[in-house]
Amino acid sequence: MKLTLKEIASKIDGTVVGDETLEIYGVSSFYDAQLQDITFASDPKFLKALNQTRAGAAIVPEDFDDSLLEESKVVLPIIKTKNPKRQFFRILSIFHPPKEPSRDVANGAAIGSNFVCGCQLSVGSHVTIGDNVKIGDRVQIMHGVYIGDDVIIGDDTLIKPNVTIMDRAKIGSRVIIYSGSVIGSDGFGFTQDMSDLSHEKIVHAGFVQIDDDVEIGACNTIDRGTLGRTWIQRGVKTDNLVHIAHNVTIGEHSLIVAQVGIAGSTIIGKRVIIAGKAGVSGHLKVGNGAIIGPGAGVLSDVESGQIVSGIPGMPHKLWLKVAAILPKLPEIRKRLIALEKKEK
Amino acid sequence: MKLTLKEIASKIDGTVVGDETLEIYGVSSFYDAQLQDITFASDPKFLKALNQTRAGAAIVPEDFDDSLLEESKVVLPIIKTKNPKRQFFRILSIFHPPKEPSRDVANGAAIGSNFVCGCQLSVGSHVTIGDNVKIGDRVQIMHGVYIGDDVIIGDDTLIKPNVTIMDRAKIGSRVIIYSGSVIGSDGFGFTQDMSDLSHEKIVHAGFVQIDDDVEIGACNTIDRGTLGRTWIQRGVKTDNLVHIAHNVTIGEHSLIVAQVGIAGSTIIGKRVIIAGKAGVSGHLKVGNGAIIGPGAGVLSDVESGQIVSGIPGMPHKLWLKVAAILPKLPEIRKRLIALEKKEK
Amino acid sequence: MKLTLKEIASKIDGTVVGDETLEIYGVSSFYDAQLQDITFASDPKFLKALNQTRAGAAIVPEDFDDSLLEESKVVLPIIKTKNPKRQFFRILSIFHPPKEPSRDVANGAAIGSNFVCGCQLSVGSHVTIGDNVKIGDRVQIMHGVYIGDDVIIGDDTLIKPNVTIMDRAKIGSRVIIYSGSVIGSDGFGFTQDMSDLSHEKIVHAGFVQIDDDVEIGACNTIDRGTLGRTWIQRGVKTDNLVHIAHNVTIGEHSLIVAQVGIAGSTIIGKRVIIAGKAGVSGHLKVGNGAIIGPGAGVLSDVESGQIVSGIPGMPHKLWLKVAAILPKLPEIRKRLIALEKKEK
Repeated sequence: MKLTLKEIASKIDGTVVGDETLEIYGVSSFYDAQLQDITFASDPKFLKALNQTRAGAAIVPEDFDDSLLEESKVVLPIIKTKNPKRQFFRILSIFHPPKEPSRDVANGAAIGSNFVCGCQLSVGSHVTIGDNVKIGDRVQIMHGVYIGDDVIIGDDTLIKPNVTIMDRAKIGSRVIIYSGSVIGSDGFGFTQDMSDLSHEKIVHAGFVQIDDDVEIGACNTIDRGTLGRTWIQRGVKTDNLVHIAHNVTIGEHSLIVAQVGIAGSTIIGKRVIIAGKAGVSGHLKVGNGAIIGPGAGVLSDVESGQIVSGIPGMPHKLWLKVAAILPKLPEIRKRLIALEKKEK
Repeated sequence: MKLTLKEIASKIDGTVVGDETLEIYGVSSFYDAQLQDITFASDPKFLKALNQTRAGAAIVPEDFDDSLLEESKVVLPIIKTKNPKRQFFRILSIFHPPKEPSRDVANGAAIGSNFVCGCQLSVGSHVTIGDNVKIGDRVQIMHGVYIGDDVIIGDDTLIKPNVTIMDRAKIGSRVIIYSGSVIGSDGFGFTQDMSDLSHEKIVHAGFVQIDDDVEIGACNTIDRGTLGRTWIQRGVKTDNLVHIAHNVTIGEHSLIVAQVGIAGSTIIGKRVIIAGKAGVSGHLKVGNGAIIGPGAGVLSDVESGQIVSGIPGMPHKLWLKVAAILPKLPEIRKRLIALEKKEK
Repeated sequence: MKLTLKEIASKIDGTVVGDETLEIYGVSSFYDAQLQDITFASDPKFLKALNQTRAGAAIVPEDFDDSLLEESKVVLPIIKTKNPKRQFFRILSIFHPPKEPSRDVANGAAIGSNFVCGCQLSVGSHVTIGDNVKIGDRVQIMHGVYIGDDVIIGDDTLIKPNVTIMDRAKIGSRVIIYSGSVIGSDGFGFTQDMSDLSHEKIVHAGFVQIDDDVEIGACNTIDRGTLGRTWIQRGVKTDNLVHIAHNVTIGEHSLIVAQVGIAGSTIIGKRVIIAGKAGVSGHLKVGNGAIIGPGAGVLSDVESGQIVSGIPGMPHKLWLKVAAILPKLPEIRKRLIALEKKEK
């Protein structure tokens, strides 16, 4: 595949500075790019280093100052556009279109009764689909997936290999669920028999609801509600190995990074970011736009817009100070002892 | 399905106060319940708010003071009983009985030689069972499960979709293993070649033993013993994404919450609780009834009944004090500097 | 199976002290061994306790002082050799040889077009292999595995049940991948639409490369590169539930312990050890031979040979001091207050 710079510019609402007939055969990162590739630079660090990429052309910000090119003797043509990174990935997706799956149902798929599906369904090998399942248009269900009874899936959703979706899950449109993830396992809830301190399983009668445009990473575990739903709202993205307990709500467009755990009944607001390995206790509220730092241990509510870090979780700026003092504790202790000696 | 309050009361050894002919059609939580539902209240907070639920009836503690009803002008009938929460979930399980699986072996299941099984076996689609496997009565093995050679499984055990059980595992009766879990992978043990510092794999000749009434959450990894067994004793419950290394023992009725990791050869006592994301080092002993707090890093033995929290793990009450002081470290440092200045 | 001590000694370059005609029927650990077993002792603690094992014989270090036997009235024969632990596991692997898989392709395996494979291929039940896949000699692919298009696998590699390997992965020879692991899921990368703060998926056009002699534990998630590769170099071993993000490199012979997470584009050197539950931020460099302690939070580069522990990550010796002071913070605060009072 090849595109001229002119063709590329037209796709990303950009303006070419330089030879717009140049042919581009691929897309690559700043330092890996070769002469036939296009790359991008949006960071000042990269914009100043344009003479160091071997790319044939670069996508740069709309307000990029051309005189910089002359200064650093850069000869490569550029395309100016808004949000070069975003546009770069648009071009990348043109050069690497997703492979179109075969729009059929593989031999041996086990499909239950009352199955309803839209057009262009793709079901891979070794799939099982339960009873009363309803699926939209252009859904792709890959190898080894299990879909329980009474599951609903919207249009254009992609379920990657070896995903498990238990009974009564409601999954929206344009959702992607990566391999190994388990949607709708029972929550970790028991009642205790005080006579022998054993734990009796309680029925988990609820379900998982995943709204449109959600992406669930690999090997996530999202438990069903005990009663009612565990709810992953529109546009949420989760990374790998994330645990979401029963009756949690995650608000629209929130990002949950790898190995995060969220305990039962906690409500996460909209556009929240929870960084890798952080843990959030149960029955808490995390407000809209809050940010929780990597590895933080959140034990109390977080207000909208607040940034919380550290163990125990505290305001981020405070944690930065605390984290800077922690390595100085041995010295601080010595100074305290010195003062005490003087005092005597 | 519907039950009168009288019928419900008889099932949970309770006493109705109010109209015992009232018909109940469902079960719901305190604030979600509708007029045809029954709910429960055991916490004083909820008992005082009985006028705020829209439920048709509520299960309350045996010693609940009826005069509270009048005070807060509550009109809904109640059922008094011991342990209302436990009884509520009993009623929930009556309204939501587990779906009876088809008691047969799906087409295409790959079953090895010398297979022995009890009555009413249920094997889902795309299952593989190795040689010399012995399975009890009413066992359910769902879609995509792999069971290796020489595995033994007791009665009434339920293996959810896409579980992997490797050779020689011994699994008891009434066990539930949730999707994505891997039982009996090799432990993380190597010997090092000092010439090139490479690591040589060692044979893991041991196995995993899971006793009766254990529940293993989704995406757990339980490694086999290097020699001998990794042993999950009777009544243990693990949450999701738990890692249990080779030759670990977990004592009866212990609870292991999500994303906990337990390193090799550690022995966890009976009725221990390890909260979410905690880590326990290898070759340690954690005594009966001990509690390990969320995210704690346990690097030394824990005595019976002790509560350990924090990083590094320390007695819980001490950790509460430490955790309260950590955010004050910047201020403490300033005060120390002020003292030093005065001293000069 | 049985071997005389003479036969065992010849296999491990050892010298028998005692009856070399003794027949050994099994291999066991120091305190579990019975009269027909051989065990090993390399630690002084065990060497002094040789009178306490019930084993029939023991493998001990080359420089073991025989007089210790007399002192403690030990009568069991011994084999002296270099690195007794390593040799013990060699003997263990002789008594427990890996089961030879059936060298054929199970019925119902779904194999794509242009499949190229070497001799003695073993493909288990319910496997799917995509188009243009190329596989070496003696490869074993177990139950439920998914292998995407354009994947390359070397000789003698073993893919355990229910593993997912996405398109274009390159996997070396003598690699083992344990169950539940996902190789080549998309990285956690998005561009943000500033108008509604939603996140737009970006194409992940890269791949995962796993070199020879690597072992990947159970339920690992290794994301593909956004552009270019995520690279697990020769001899690396990962434990269970490890997360490796897009474009990470892990250098030769490094060990990554359970539940570690490594964020995007970080480069880990050779022979690095990252202990359990540690997290390493993105875009960092960890030098050759570095060691990262359990649960450490690494937020900046780590130099070769450095040992880093704690949260935030700091030199290990410093962290030991800090960790010792943390439980004393309440007392330190009291002493500070006492000094302040005196000052007044």
